[in-house]
Amino acid sequence: MKITKPTLLIDETKVRKNIRMMAEKARKSDPILRPHFKTHQSATIGRWFAEEGITCATVSSVDMARYFADAGWKDLTIAFPYNPLEAEAIQKLASEIRLNVLIVSKEALEHLNNHVDAPVGYFIKLDVGTHRTGVMPDNFTEIQAMAKSNQPHHELKGLLAHAGHTYQPLTREEANKIYHQSLAAFDKVSQAIGRKDLIYSYGDTPSCSLVDDFSAVQELRPGNFAFYDVMQHHFGSCTLEDIAVCMACPVVSIHPDRGEVVVYGGGVHFSKDFIQVSDRRVFGTVVSTDGTSWETTPLATVDRLSQEHGIIRGSSDFINSVRIGDLVGILPVHSCMAADLQGYYVSLAGQRIEKLNKATL
Amino acid sequence: MKITKPTLLIDETKVRKNIRMMAEKARKSDPILRPHFKTHQSATIGRWFAEEGITCATVSSVDMARYFADAGWKDLTIAFPYNPLEAEAIQKLASEIRLNVLIVSKEALEHLNNHVDAPVGYFIKLDVGTHRTGVMPDNFTEIQAMAKSNQPHHELKGLLAHAGHTYQPLTREEANKIYHQSLAAFDKVSQAIGRKDLIYSYGDTPSCSLVDDFSAVQELRPGNFAFYDVMQHHFGSCTLEDIAVCMACPVVSIHPDRGEVVVYGGGVHFSKDFIQVSDRRVFGTVVSTDGTSWETTPLATVDRLSQEHGIIRGSSDFINSVRIGDLVGILPVHSCMAADLQGYYVSLAGQRIEKLNKATL
Repeated sequence: MKITKPTLLIDETKVRKNIRMMAEKARKSDPILRPHFKTHQSATIGRWFAEEGITCATVSSVDMARYFADAGWKDLTIAFPYNPLEAEAIQKLASEIRLNVLIVSKEALEHLNNHVDAPVGYFIKLDVGTHRTGVMPDNFTEIQAMAKSNQPHHELKGLLAHAGHTYQPLTREEANKIYHQSLAAFDKVSQAIGRKDLIYSYGDTPSCSLVDDFSAVQELRPGNFAFYDVMQHHFGSCTLEDIAVCMACPVVSIHPDRGEVVVYGGGVHFSKDFIQVSDRRVFGTVVSTDGTSWETTPLATVDRLSQEHGIIRGSSDFINSVRIGDLVGILPVHSCMAADLQGYYVSLAGQRIEKLNKATL
Repeated sequence: MKITKPTLLIDETKVRKNIRMMAEKARKSDPILRPHFKTHQSATIGRWFAEEGITCATVSSVDMARYFADAGWKDLTIAFPYNPLEAEAIQKLASEIRLNVLIVSKEALEHLNNHVDAPVGYFIKLDVGTHRTGVMPDNFTEIQAMAKSNQPHHELKGLLAHAGHTYQPLTREEANKIYHQSLAAFDKVSQAIGRKDLIYSYGDTPSCSLVDDFSAVQELRPGNFAFYDVMQHHFGSCTLEDIAVCMACPVVSIHPDRGEVVVYGGGVHFSKDFIQVSDRRVFGTVVSTDGTSWETTPLATVDRLSQEHGIIRGSSDFINSVRIGDLVGILPVHSCMAADLQGYYVSLAGQRIEKLNKATL
């Protein structure tokens, strides 16, 4: 298909390379790779993982679990706090596939016990420093209550942490430090509840990209690594060459007087995530593209976004190099959010790649 | 339907009241109301406008024009710079309905002239101070070139401005001042090209909410006013009672120790727009809801968002008042962006209201 509007191009070769890299890293240290599928939300891309030997996955919603279960995935963890209002949908899913949920409080476990009959594995979510959700590792009373399921078919499988505080520019040493702090939390909690057989489930893309030895955990759950993005590059998790998605955007307006180019491609295509680079916000990195591939040399940056407009700030050389009707490529700041906003991806061969459709949920 | 996950509730009575208010305001000063449909993107909600006497609309993309043309709208303006790559789709649309496009440079007009055969009206986009797109009102050479269509079936209809610099806390006096500056730009350009019959097309929700007398323009294009939101309330454009959409979100985690409640409802439901209130970012205003209506008393605010999580910061009274499995309502900071992210709306009577589906584009 001809690219005429903002279109998220996907380089299958790069995605497969990223998957293989992470799968090999996991194999080397022995944990299972249970990649997070919230990044791509696509049954087709899920198959690329399956072809690299991946048999289980993580999702961030019950809807996403339903979508991937329908696509043939038999072993899913919903890595989002158990939502009592979705007990019925969880019950149905759990009667079809091997399903794990996340328990963040004893009330949540009680609700699961009392409202879901099907077998469900569960993980206790630990707060290892991000302070989003999860129980503090020293809150033994709560943890002990969360470890005691009243139902034999609701089995405590393990402990799960998402070290969201790795989402900043990070050295390997700092990533390792956060990993070892998380390990200490896992050990402390295991000891408190007297279980040595618990799965330690860890994983976020910065940690999984920067830490080399994961032999102390049994499961890794990174998601973003399949695509990577400008934010991960900024954090030090990847190179620009590793980024596997690029938004092709038509140039619609050129303003040499203020060094700006306006493209069709805005908040409804990228979301509004940004990285702060000294005193400026950056909403994307501009590269060249013809709609069937892209170069990785940064040419300019996206300075701001409105609903449909992206405003690029660049050198006069860059400004002079483009014409209205040209395409430019924009490497997204946050590929998970950009991917979520698309109706579909387009491969470098010009084929549509379908994904979860919100209108059908 | 029972609300079990983040769901954008829509209060039809409030939407209709907002539409009626703006339609009456336009009628009083005589301009035509050509409301921007990018806010709702729904054929059903479009019908509510039609029932208030609206016969023409504004959209922000060719795709949206196609969607509303298929829904029966016969007179649409695409208020986004003409994109040469979509000439073919524009050609097709223009052969079916009365279509206006936006021209921001002489190159764009040349392309339109050379590549679109069907009759198309066009507006010259003026930059009245926002510095996003549009020609500067004193750039007479460019403007004169943009006024000279080589094709008799491409008719210059008028001048169009979007005063995006009204998107800040604003008094009526300030809104009037920006309006009168824009009028001066319209007059200057009309004079330069020697046309007294041009339509002056103005409109953004803050201006249209705060300015009372629009007798000097012929067309108003606000969009957000149909729903309003916390940002518009912050700007002074509306009351909290006027806000016609509210995201019902399940409570999934409670943290009295740090005064936080976590809901299912994140960046993929709200986008990441925020308002800055002194030194804090606010991503939404929390109200109470049972899923079939909502109260407008602010209870707390959304402090941050990740992909699926919303983190609410509130008083101990608020924290103590909620349980996991409860619903809370969140008035979105930017309703256009939140609406864009939904697969559908849900009415207060529990009925799905369909909208444009990105997966079908």
